[in-house]
Amino acid sequence: MFNFEILKRSAHSRARLGRLTTPHGTVETPAFIFCATKAAIKGATPQDMRREKTQIILSNTYHLMLQPGSEVVAHMGGLHKFMGWDGPMLTDSGGFQIFSLGHGSVAEEIKGRRSSSRPKSLLKINEEGATFKSYLDGSYHTLTPEKSIQVQRGLGADLIVVLDECTPFHVDKSYTEKSMHLSHRWAERSLKEFQKGPEDIQALYGITQGGVYPDLRKISADFVNSHPFFGHAVGGSLGESKAQMEEVVEMAMEPLDPSRPVHLLGIGGVSDIFYGIEQGIDTFDCVHPTRLARHGGALMMPVNAEGKEHINLRNARFQKDSRPIDESCACQTCQTLSRGYLHHLLKAKELLAMQALTIHNVHFMNKLLTSIRQALSTDTLAEERKKWLGEPH
Amino acid sequence: MFNFEILKRSAHSRARLGRLTTPHGTVETPAFIFCATKAAIKGATPQDMRREKTQIILSNTYHLMLQPGSEVVAHMGGLHKFMGWDGPMLTDSGGFQIFSLGHGSVAEEIKGRRSSSRPKSLLKINEEGATFKSYLDGSYHTLTPEKSIQVQRGLGADLIVVLDECTPFHVDKSYTEKSMHLSHRWAERSLKEFQKGPEDIQALYGITQGGVYPDLRKISADFVNSHPFFGHAVGGSLGESKAQMEEVVEMAMEPLDPSRPVHLLGIGGVSDIFYGIEQGIDTFDCVHPTRLARHGGALMMPVNAEGKEHINLRNARFQKDSRPIDESCACQTCQTLSRGYLHHLLKAKELLAMQALTIHNVHFMNKLLTSIRQALSTDTLAEERKKWLGEPH
Repeated sequence: MFNFEILKRSAHSRARLGRLTTPHGTVETPAFIFCATKAAIKGATPQDMRREKTQIILSNTYHLMLQPGSEVVAHMGGLHKFMGWDGPMLTDSGGFQIFSLGHGSVAEEIKGRRSSSRPKSLLKINEEGATFKSYLDGSYHTLTPEKSIQVQRGLGADLIVVLDECTPFHVDKSYTEKSMHLSHRWAERSLKEFQKGPEDIQALYGITQGGVYPDLRKISADFVNSHPFFGHAVGGSLGESKAQMEEVVEMAMEPLDPSRPVHLLGIGGVSDIFYGIEQGIDTFDCVHPTRLARHGGALMMPVNAEGKEHINLRNARFQKDSRPIDESCACQTCQTLSRGYLHHLLKAKELLAMQALTIHNVHFMNKLLTSIRQALSTDTLAEERKKWLGEPH
Repeated sequence: MFNFEILKRSAHSRARLGRLTTPHGTVETPAFIFCATKAAIKGATPQDMRREKTQIILSNTYHLMLQPGSEVVAHMGGLHKFMGWDGPMLTDSGGFQIFSLGHGSVAEEIKGRRSSSRPKSLLKINEEGATFKSYLDGSYHTLTPEKSIQVQRGLGADLIVVLDECTPFHVDKSYTEKSMHLSHRWAERSLKEFQKGPEDIQALYGITQGGVYPDLRKISADFVNSHPFFGHAVGGSLGESKAQMEEVVEMAMEPLDPSRPVHLLGIGGVSDIFYGIEQGIDTFDCVHPTRLARHGGALMMPVNAEGKEHINLRNARFQKDSRPIDESCACQTCQTLSRGYLHHLLKAKELLAMQALTIHNVHFMNKLLTSIRQALSTDTLAEERKKWLGEPH
């Protein structure tokens, strides 16, 4: 039922064209995975997602285990049936939110934005698992590797992920190393729990750890390579800057088994995606395209003069602009609505603004990845990169 | 370009099957007009509206004259092009909001819910027009009959409406009579202004006044009948109860020229629509179906035991209900999503809840009116009414 086939390898980098097969269909890779955090894409119906060429979406185990609960989703026939999405799906382990919600500080740190202490909603981490307070009602919950797999079994996504500890970037090497070994032990417990369940219904991803330390990255790669995971995700701290992120992705990818699909967690900028693909990443996810839409941002290609990958339609200069967001875009929004109208909707706080911009940004990401796959098939990724980003910076 | 053709008259009432032709297509009547208040249906794209069989929508002159301004809409090619809706459209005069916004009290009164004084945002009414404060920034504006027509010319809807004074229901007969004559003088000024413009681009509706007083209703009907309006709208106070509303609609309709299309402002309940159609009403509008959707309400047929015309999906009893809202409904939402999922979306405050319920309620209203037209063509309206509402109460 599950398969990952590499159709073509780049002559210039670790980039590859692939095909990931799941019980709910295939995903042509590299691919972007959209975030349906609480089992819903904010602002788009499943039909909107399909029409704009979406291949795969994800939901967050942390949110769904608290509301409505995996037993409710299971009772309703699993995530696919529950949300009316019959294509491939991924769920994460729930760990990232436990370590990042509360003050949102660790999420920022992992992406290198600022340093902060542990959020207060995380109460305890020990060998067994992590204890945290619900963001909904303050109730106490413990997530263990076994529990995460059980919850993800109940949710029923095609691709599921082991629980790991997400370390902030400012911790030292000693903490990173201890944390890595804890995550490895959790990964083995996850795998054991996973192997109790039915085969070929879901596939399990392991996560490489090791923070910003090359020797730890190598140890962690050896660990996941030697365990029967279907795929790998690049986890752990990616450093405190874009440059360090690129360095860390490279040191994480170099020793990884190249036959398995690799997911890069939480990365969705255009230049980051090109970089990741050159490092051999097959799938990406990020809330950025849909969140940006809800704040008035429309993804644009090529980037404008200021180096931004979007325009903000709240800007007064768009008030009487009768052009679509992008003349060359085939999305439903660009086919019917103008920048001036979208500007009006944003000013008037109309729901439709979020819907229309979400549709555009979803289409944009799918078009970006389609173009990249096309370029990989003709070995012209560098040229494609220039089209989307201009000359390398 | 404009035409209203009566295809069949009921043998039992003033009900009729008709066809209203506009430069943007025809409207089979009776029809329901959905409210795109600020040039957008809250929660549905133009494509959603079309797919769910919508014939005609309206926008509110009051909101659009303040934001983005009719000159911006005109610059962008008019309302149809601005909002990506190429079907028939109506705009109101702006008067209703001037008289009802501020405290929303007059709107409630006109629908008979409670009595209250004039909203404070209405500063002055005199022969010239009405002066009010903008709901957006408190700036002062004067709307005159001429200005309302000029603004509606700029907006460019197919069907436009004269400015009238909307009186609260608690005013006495003497005030109602004076107000009626003022509205008649405003109607003549509206008509004169309208006749300055190009022909056959837009069509003008007059409004019958007279409150709850039969003799005034007769005088007002004679007034509109004798002026070259394309259609009529039933305006003025409809009384303080459902029973009085029915009485007033009957006294307003009886003396009206039966060859012109008649619109009933702000009425959208299922039983009210059946009643109105029996009185000869051709089109209805109301924010109810779309507003109800945003609060978790799904229109249902037939009404449930408590006499309600909807179910509220926030109710805990829907948590594990895997049925669609309505097994027999062909809307996109009922084709893919369950009550249990919609319940989850509402609890999780997901945007998609509003979208999915709006789609259902739009489809419901269009299906209701389609069924009614079908029944009129076979002269079985009474039987159709029973299907939707049960035995007459």
